[in-house]
Amino acid sequence: MLFLLARKGFSVSLYEQRSDIRKIKIREGRSINLAVSTRGWTALELLGIDELVREHVVPMRGRMVHSPEGDTSFQPYSAEGDAIFSVSRGRLNQLLLDIAEKCGVKLCFSHKCTYVDLKHGIAYFTVAAEELSEVTIEADLIIGADGAFSAVRKAMQRTDRFNFSQYYIDWGYKELTIPPTPSGEWALEPNALHIWPRGNYMLIALPNLDKSFTCTLFLGFEGDPSFEKLSKPEAVHAFFTTTFPDAVPLMPNLQEEFMENPTSSLVSISCYPWTRYNRSALVGDASHAVVPFYGQGMNAGFEDVRVFMELIEQWGADWSKVLPAYEQLRKPDADAIQELAMANFVEMRDSVADEEFVLRKKIEAELHRRYPRHWLPLYSMVTFSNMRYSDAQERGRQQARIMDEVMARPDIAQSWQELDYEALVKGLPELKS
Amino acid sequence: MLFLLARKGFSVSLYEQRSDIRKIKIREGRSINLAVSTRGWTALELLGIDELVREHVVPMRGRMVHSPEGDTSFQPYSAEGDAIFSVSRGRLNQLLLDIAEKCGVKLCFSHKCTYVDLKHGIAYFTVAAEELSEVTIEADLIIGADGAFSAVRKAMQRTDRFNFSQYYIDWGYKELTIPPTPSGEWALEPNALHIWPRGNYMLIALPNLDKSFTCTLFLGFEGDPSFEKLSKPEAVHAFFTTTFPDAVPLMPNLQEEFMENPTSSLVSISCYPWTRYNRSALVGDASHAVVPFYGQGMNAGFEDVRVFMELIEQWGADWSKVLPAYEQLRKPDADAIQELAMANFVEMRDSVADEEFVLRKKIEAELHRRYPRHWLPLYSMVTFSNMRYSDAQERGRQQARIMDEVMARPDIAQSWQELDYEALVKGLPELKS
Repeated sequence: MLFLLARKGFSVSLYEQRSDIRKIKIREGRSINLAVSTRGWTALELLGIDELVREHVVPMRGRMVHSPEGDTSFQPYSAEGDAIFSVSRGRLNQLLLDIAEKCGVKLCFSHKCTYVDLKHGIAYFTVAAEELSEVTIEADLIIGADGAFSAVRKAMQRTDRFNFSQYYIDWGYKELTIPPTPSGEWALEPNALHIWPRGNYMLIALPNLDKSFTCTLFLGFEGDPSFEKLSKPEAVHAFFTTTFPDAVPLMPNLQEEFMENPTSSLVSISCYPWTRYNRSALVGDASHAVVPFYGQGMNAGFEDVRVFMELIEQWGADWSKVLPAYEQLRKPDADAIQELAMANFVEMRDSVADEEFVLRKKIEAELHRRYPRHWLPLYSMVTFSNMRYSDAQERGRQQARIMDEVMARPDIAQSWQELDYEALVKGLPELKS
Repeated sequence: MLFLLARKGFSVSLYEQRSDIRKIKIREGRSINLAVSTRGWTALELLGIDELVREHVVPMRGRMVHSPEGDTSFQPYSAEGDAIFSVSRGRLNQLLLDIAEKCGVKLCFSHKCTYVDLKHGIAYFTVAAEELSEVTIEADLIIGADGAFSAVRKAMQRTDRFNFSQYYIDWGYKELTIPPTPSGEWALEPNALHIWPRGNYMLIALPNLDKSFTCTLFLGFEGDPSFEKLSKPEAVHAFFTTTFPDAVPLMPNLQEEFMENPTSSLVSISCYPWTRYNRSALVGDASHAVVPFYGQGMNAGFEDVRVFMELIEQWGADWSKVLPAYEQLRKPDADAIQELAMANFVEMRDSVADEEFVLRKKIEAELHRRYPRHWLPLYSMVTFSNMRYSDAQERGRQQARIMDEVMARPDIAQSWQELDYEALVKGLPELKS
């Protein structure tokens, strides 16, 4: 966003609390993985750096589901071979910083924002660089792209009639690693998102370019099993051996990593308005942090940027036009992806291992094959299109009602290939391409 | 709460940001009115100050509904003559401070809390009294009874996995006054809560001991009509004359008051947990601020105190037992009254003027008259009992389902007196007395 603004001739400065991550060596296997999908690529194309980013991703063409017995089954995301793309968060950040700098954005690291005077467009920072000092900045527009615990949003929270919620789910997560095999190869199929769904919890693994996998265990904080119960290495070993038997031999450092790595919480954040006084605005996680189960957090943030830039195309730097239009346009979509992400947790940890779920997906795939302009599975609308999230959610609801009726037929498992598919899509308006 | 603790031998100090309100003359008609109902009285009895408070209240035995034509109709709260009691917030606070002081609570005014170290039970204050100075207090237990914008809760918001939401409704409110008549009498029936329901907005009036009424206009911030549209005295006069014609002659200072008094917002606050580290806890609005439409905000806060004190009876000062039990017990009830209060706004501003609503209430009253141990209207369960809010809400839902069926009968307006009342209550378990 910043360099798009810079490219348009705005004078843009970036203030970042951390130091320059480009000067820190990143351990690829340890960095958090993100999955770039269509909305992300659309924004990256607009930025002109999609080709550059493509050199750093690993495509995942479907889910590889691992059963408790260690069997696997592959569920492609689409018949057309659509993929989502695993990328290291650190690497992506480095690329974005490089290009921002090239476009003339002034980068100010180690600046911790302590207060924002929204009305007058003034931000206050303490700088940790050499000696501790204070810096005050005045700007026509302050953009809070500062994440789930946004300092700009904190300032907005002090204003009247600012709606806000932060909701922590009862599950936490811990990152673990599957390193390359001793011979330097991928230990699992690389072009898949691996899932070990276990009802109330799950393990997932995403491929890295260095042939390792970053695993994430999603598990309740309390209860049985839970992070609370896994306080000793022996308990961790026993739990993994019982529930993820095929993963254990691939994780030589399981117990050490489990003990050393933090157990992190998962928060869903919602607020409104996203702008104040026509000189401040929130984008990305600052305005709508979501749980990670739809892989859309970063993609939604990138889409904010695309929408924002389109509005600038329309109105120029008339913030009194751009900012209200931006928040009114994006809020319903942020709400939609928030609900969808929460619902997808249930699907991932539970349903993907379910026979009925697999059959349902098969019938949906068949509907899509026969009537591609009338039926697109919800996952595809969210992941492989630029359709508004709120439209995708609404269309998904319509399709779900049809599928509920189909799945309620007593003999559906036998007769699904003989369904009157045309009748099923009859009531649905054609999708815009 | 504080003086109950003091009475039990705890060393208790109260820190308050404002100065001692007992030293400031209160203008009765201007202070915000509260309505004490059964839950409030139960706690006040426990505190032993119910008789004292009764000297300062005005009973309201029902709703006096004012039509747009200026007609009135009285809807009693119950056939038994149950009442809610209008009291000035300032007067009640003064009484509570007096009794707290007598019981040995140390009162520290003009102390503004700047930070709370929850883990170590340390609170930091700046004192505005004479010279600005800083005070640090350590305590075994810090109770945040510090309202909707609680400083203790702010400290909790910085801890991990703290769920929080603040939601502002699109309506605001403004206080106005109906003074006593020139001959010094009540200008309206004093033993009623007066409502001018107008669909999307409403005016209410509560009696004061000095024979004035405190009026509150609840109106949208934006839209038509709205506070935004009422920016000039002439517009205010025209609006009131059209929509509240019988109130206008009773409000000699309408336009000045409307211009001078602030337009305030209405927030609903929810959070969890309510305690941290077994040495801090939230009570009242700090943990569950509600919109004012059920008249239960203060009553719910007083009920927190009753429950808290009952748990201390059971566990003594073992905070590791008392605090988790307190928050687990009260959270569902806080959630229930929050939803009920939001729903009652619709009832007050809209339904009370509706013929079907009035008939529904009549049938419910008849059900209660015939089967008092099986049917208690929701309003009575909330207002005139100490039944848990969550139980009242659930019972209310059961009764609403029955009433929905009754009201769906095509000839109900004619035949309601011939209903098979016994059949209606058949499935309902007997209410605990």
